[in-house]
Formats: sequence, C-alpha cells, structure tokens
Amino acid sequence: MNFSQRALNMQESPIRKLIPYAENAKKNGKKVYHLNIGQPDLETPKEFYDYIESNRQKVISYSHSAGLPELREAFADYYKRWNMGFEYEDIMITTGGSEAIIFALSAIADPGDEIIVIEPFYANYRGFAEMLNLKLKAVRALPENGYALPSKEEFEKVYSEKTRAVIFSNPSNPTGAVYTSEEVKRIVDFAEEKDIFVISDEVYKEFTFDGRKHVSVMEFEPKERFIVVDSISKRYSACGARIGVFATKNKKLFAQAMKFAQSRLCSPVVAQLGTVGLLKNLDEKYTEEMKNIYQQRRDAVYEELSKIEGISFKKPQGSFYVSVELPVDDSEEFVKFLLNDFDIDGETAMVAPLNGFYATEGSGKKEIRIAYVLEPQAIKKACRIIKEGIKAYNEK
Amino acid sequence: MNFSQRALNMQESPIRKLIPYAENAKKNGKKVYHLNIGQPDLETPKEFYDYIESNRQKVISYSHSAGLPELREAFADYYKRWNMGFEYEDIMITTGGSEAIIFALSAIADPGDEIIVIEPFYANYRGFAEMLNLKLKAVRALPENGYALPSKEEFEKVYSEKTRAVIFSNPSNPTGAVYTSEEVKRIVDFAEEKDIFVISDEVYKEFTFDGRKHVSVMEFEPKERFIVVDSISKRYSACGARIGVFATKNKKLFAQAMKFAQSRLCSPVVAQLGTVGLLKNLDEKYTEEMKNIYQQRRDAVYEELSKIEGISFKKPQGSFYVSVELPVDDSEEFVKFLLNDFDIDGETAMVAPLNGFYATEGSGKKEIRIAYVLEPQAIKKACRIIKEGIKAYNEK
Repeated sequence: MNFSQRALNMQESPIRKLIPYAENAKKNGKKVYHLNIGQPDLETPKEFYDYIESNRQKVISYSHSAGLPELREAFADYYKRWNMGFEYEDIMITTGGSEAIIFALSAIADPGDEIIVIEPFYANYRGFAEMLNLKLKAVRALPENGYALPSKEEFEKVYSEKTRAVIFSNPSNPTGAVYTSEEVKRIVDFAEEKDIFVISDEVYKEFTFDGRKHVSVMEFEPKERFIVVDSISKRYSACGARIGVFATKNKKLFAQAMKFAQSRLCSPVVAQLGTVGLLKNLDEKYTEEMKNIYQQRRDAVYEELSKIEGISFKKPQGSFYVSVELPVDDSEEFVKFLLNDFDIDGETAMVAPLNGFYATEGSGKKEIRIAYVLEPQAIKKACRIIKEGIKAYNEK
Repeated sequence: MNFSQRALNMQESPIRKLIPYAENAKKNGKKVYHLNIGQPDLETPKEFYDYIESNRQKVISYSHSAGLPELREAFADYYKRWNMGFEYEDIMITTGGSEAIIFALSAIADPGDEIIVIEPFYANYRGFAEMLNLKLKAVRALPENGYALPSKEEFEKVYSEKTRAVIFSNPSNPTGAVYTSEEVKRIVDFAEEKDIFVISDEVYKEFTFDGRKHVSVMEFEPKERFIVVDSISKRYSACGARIGVFATKNKKLFAQAMKFAQSRLCSPVVAQLGTVGLLKNLDEKYTEEMKNIYQQRRDAVYEELSKIEGISFKKPQGSFYVSVELPVDDSEEFVKFLLNDFDIDGETAMVAPLNGFYATEGSGKKEIRIAYVLEPQAIKKACRIIKEGIKAYNEK
C-alpha cells in the first residue's frame, strides 16, 4: 500500500505551504498583509450572480463537454474583440485555466516527455507536469533584466528529441514581465524550427501597463501550433468560479483534448452561466478600470520597493505580480522571519518565496514574488515592513 | 508536433459517441427517448440556488483546496448519518466524482501500474487510467448472474506485482447490481491479502431497491485502506454542479492527494455554496422520495424488458441503470439501427452499447446499458421500441 512516485515527487504549493506561519502570526495578534497569493480583493461584478439568479435551470444538467453553447459564443465574441480569431468550435470551457493546461499537456506529451518553461514560472505548471509524469526543462530569466525572455541559444541548450512544447505565461506570473512582439516571435520561431507546440497562458492579458500592448501568440503563424490558456479568475476577480478556456485552431488537437474533457463530463455549469453574464454585460470599460486599479498598485509597489537598498528588479509591466531579488541569504527563511519574529506596530507582511517557481534546484533562493492585490496604502505599508524586516533579518 | 499516445489510446466516450446519430434522427423528425446517459429529468431542489442567492460573496475567492469549511462540515454530518465515520479532516471537496477518482489514482499509482476493475465498469475509469498511463485489469461479471461479484479466484488471476488497487462502483453503474456484505468483504479481504488500496465509488448509495441496504466499504477494517468516492450529481439531480468528494481516514494518503488538489487551487465555489444548501436543508425524506421514484422506474424497465425474448439479465437492485444482453449480433450496430432506420409512430430510443464499458477487447458486444432516468410511461415506450427494434434488426 504505497503512494505513487508522482505524488511523492510533488512539492507542496510554494504559495500555500507557509500559510500555517501566517495563521500562527494572526493567533499571536499580528495583522498580516497577504501579498503571497493572487487573490484580488476587488469585488466580483454582480452581473455574475445576477445572471445565475435570472437563469435558474430546473435541472442542473451536464453541459456539452466543451461548455454551454451560449458561453462558447460569448467567448468567441470576446476573442474577436482581441483579434485572436477563435471561433465557437475552437473554444473549450474548462474548470479553471488549470484544467486547460492539464488537457493541453495530456494531449501532446507522454511520460518522460519534456516541456520547456521559462523560469521563474507559474508554480503549478510543475504540479501538472508531475501528475502527468512530464519533465520540465527550464530556460532562465533574470531579475536584473526585468525577467526578459532568454535568448534563442538558451532554448537550444535545453531542447531534446523529447521536447514537446514550450509553455509560458504572458503577461508573466510570477515576474510581471510583458513580452514584446519580438520576444513572442522568438518562442514561435523556435517552436517552428523544432516542430513543437506552443502553450500560451494569456490569463493576465488585460493587465498591461504604461500603454504597453499585450501580444498574443495568435498574432503569429501557423496557428495550428498554438494553444491558448485563458481564465476569468483574475480578469473578473472570480477565482473561485473555476472557469477557464482551452482554445486552439488545430482541429485535430481539439478533438484529442475533447476525449479528456468528455471523461470528466463537463465544467461547472452554474459558474458557466455566471460567466455568460459577465461576458455579455461587461465591456472593455470594465477591464480598463481594473487595469488602472492594478497600474496604481504597481506604481505603489514600485515606488516603495525602489527604496530598498540592495534589491534587484525592474519596473513590472503587467499581470499583478512582481518578482524581486532581495539582499537576504534565503528568502523562504526571510518570509518565516517576517511572520514569526517581526512586526511594525503589530503588523507584518506575507509574500511567496520564489524557489518553488523554479525547476532548477537551488534557484530563486534570494527572490520573492509579491502579488499586489491590495489597496495602494496597504501595499506601501507591506513594502515598508519588508524593507525594515530585511534590516532586522540581516542583523539577527 | 505529434499527439500523445495517451490521447490516441483513449476511446471516445461510449455514452456520447453515438450522439450524432441521435441528432440526425431528430433532424429527420423522430422523437428520441434518451436512456443512454445518466442525466435524470428530476428537478434540482431549489435549496441549491436559494442558498447561493442568499449567500452571495462579495469576492468569489478561492476556497481552501479541500473545500469550504461549511461544506466539509455538512458532509461530515451527512456521513455520520450513514455511519461512515468520516470527520471534517477526512473530507476533500472535488470537482465531481471524476476528480476524486483522478486524485485517488494519481496518489497511489505510477505509469505502468495496474488497477483491478470489475467489468462492465463505469466507462470513464478507463479515460482516467489512460490519462495517467495506468493499466486496467478486469475481472468479469456476467449478465446471467445479475452481474454479481466474481469469485476470489478471478481476482487472483489478474493480480500482479504491479497491482495498486481495486476500484468498483456499488451500487453499480452500469449494471444495477448492489453488492452484499459478503461481496464487499470479498474485495476488502483480497485487498488486505495483497496489501493494496480499495477505491469504492458509492455515488449511488441512496438508490437501493426492495429494502436492500447499501454496504459501504467503511463498514470494514482497516479503514486506512479505503478511499470513498462520492458525488451530489445523481443524489440531488445536480450533475452540472460538479461537486464530488474524496474521503479517506488515511491521513498520509489524504496529504498526498492534497498536493494534487492544491495544484488546481480549489473546486467550484459557487456550486460548493449551493451544496451546503442541499445538505443543510434536505434530509433522508428527500432521498427516500428519490429512491421511490427510481424504484418505480426500475419496475417499469424490468416489466417491459422481461417481455423481450432471448434477453439475458436479472432484476437490477440499485443505481438507476440496468445492463442486459440482447439477442443481437452487435449492440452498437443495433443502437445505430434504432436511430437511423427504425421508429414506432415517429419515436425511437437511444441506449448505450456496453462494449465501451469493458477493458477486454471484444467483450460486451451483445450488451447495452439502459439509464432509467425518464418517467415510467416513457421508459415503457422506449422498451417496447427496443423490443420491436430487435425483431426488425434481426430480420434485416
């Protein structure tokens, strides 16, 4: 009665594993600013619940395994506004972006196959790869370059006959980098040369700052090579809804992914309904407002972090994360220190150590990820706590 | 740019793959009685939507990866009524029973490992096994025995060093068999002897007929060996909600499964809320009513099927399915025939060919599964269509 190697190999979520320390800090009366998880504090638009309430189904039946027709249509309209060219039949509704990634990987890679990631990367890519017995091969982006895309040579170094795809998020979780057209093209050209798939996680595409434009992989050719992963979690502050999208113009690939979709029957239908309400009743004005809110928060986090001596990072351009290298020996120990042994007037801050966002053992040891999901004043306070905390930690 | 073997190996859902034939029949003006899929026509209790509406969350946040505390508590109370002994911390809320099975298999088996199934079995077990590169080894239950549990010797024959678990549904989908205490014990004893896990899919436990009692695997020892898979889909006619449960008293196993749960963040929160409403506000009276409705339908299907000459089956005892062997050469061809070439007064019936519910190639060729999810009059009509259809098919 043994556990599987795939389970034993799996790390605990780097975003969640230190939560007991935060709970303990709260028990001891401290206030904790949570910048460790991408859970926005913004209200979910009431259009979500309103649509559910006014469209109660007598029988909450299975939907089509690819999703409710009205939701697939609503997403097709949405993607047309972004010139991504997805039609109804290219769109599969999934249980969060997570499931879209699992379907993509399942459809194109077998145990022992390799997937190229750009590290630091969204930590759960690793969990999905472990579950499916895939190996992540990492090219490394550097804090001092603002985590810009590594060169083609770096990709060449990790490529092998077993490589099946490149997966990346743009705008990036955890770094906040937004790739230029040239950078996205570098990935596409590499995939073309090697004849592998590109899985483009564009969940944060609305959140690009300072007038910078999101570049979708769908601006390139040949479209058959691309899988776009999407989610409403951040865009509409509806993380718990668990509605995502797997989208591809590659009809044969879509058919393969549909087999996995059919085996789990369908994605959550009530939340699918709510999402129809969001997509039909909210337009670019809503997401523009959201973007402005996050840009203000980005400004707040940038202003305060810039005051920390010895920090290495560049101004983040999108998503609602920033990764930074701190002048500490071990960022995980530093996070524990902030929660256990430090406070300013009874307040402390929690961030995510970045080691869990790397595939390469021992990397990211001085880095952290900050999710700027609170109001600017709270963010500023939290950053000041980090600043003073570094001094105290290093004097210890 | 190839697809994975795990995808290519996967069969299309036997429950859904013939749907285009049904759509075509409808296009040609036929009415189709759908007995092919376990989608009840009964209304979802309004307590589901009422609870969601009166508990609107300002921010639909991620829940704990194991589920909302109030839902885990409500399930703990529910399992206490069934004397299953699960406490709050043994219960993980999943996205349907499907995800509970995926977590169970992921946590205990690696690629190439084997899982024993009792065929015919719930077809999607095969899909999950393909996704995770596991092999199903089947012991065979026979229609002429009412699909009773095969002997211990049969289990011995398929056991190998690579066997990690037995998975079975009780009451059975697709056969309608309900295992006696002796039968469940036979599985438990075998697992004990071989030191493997037991995954007990008890989704239909409320639906046992003629006074027969459901026997949970949790009545046996040692409890650390057992994983119970559950779902609200059928119990509350809420298939689209996608709320299931992974439950085990084995704390180490629970911790392993939690890693997979964390990587997908959480199960759908709005439906979790609705399920709190169901569990808190409906008691045994509700499920008793549901059971009686299905028993009446079972009586209807049994009465009409008994009139078919050459049919092989026994009176089903639970769930809302019955599998039968028909006097036809190929049940899949027969189902297509009913949809394409047969009707009585413009009406025809759709059922699921049973070949897709077998792991052993070429098996189940004469069998079908009937889901008695319609009203008794509709079921009777559909059975008469099958009866006359057999004559017409064999005269063809």
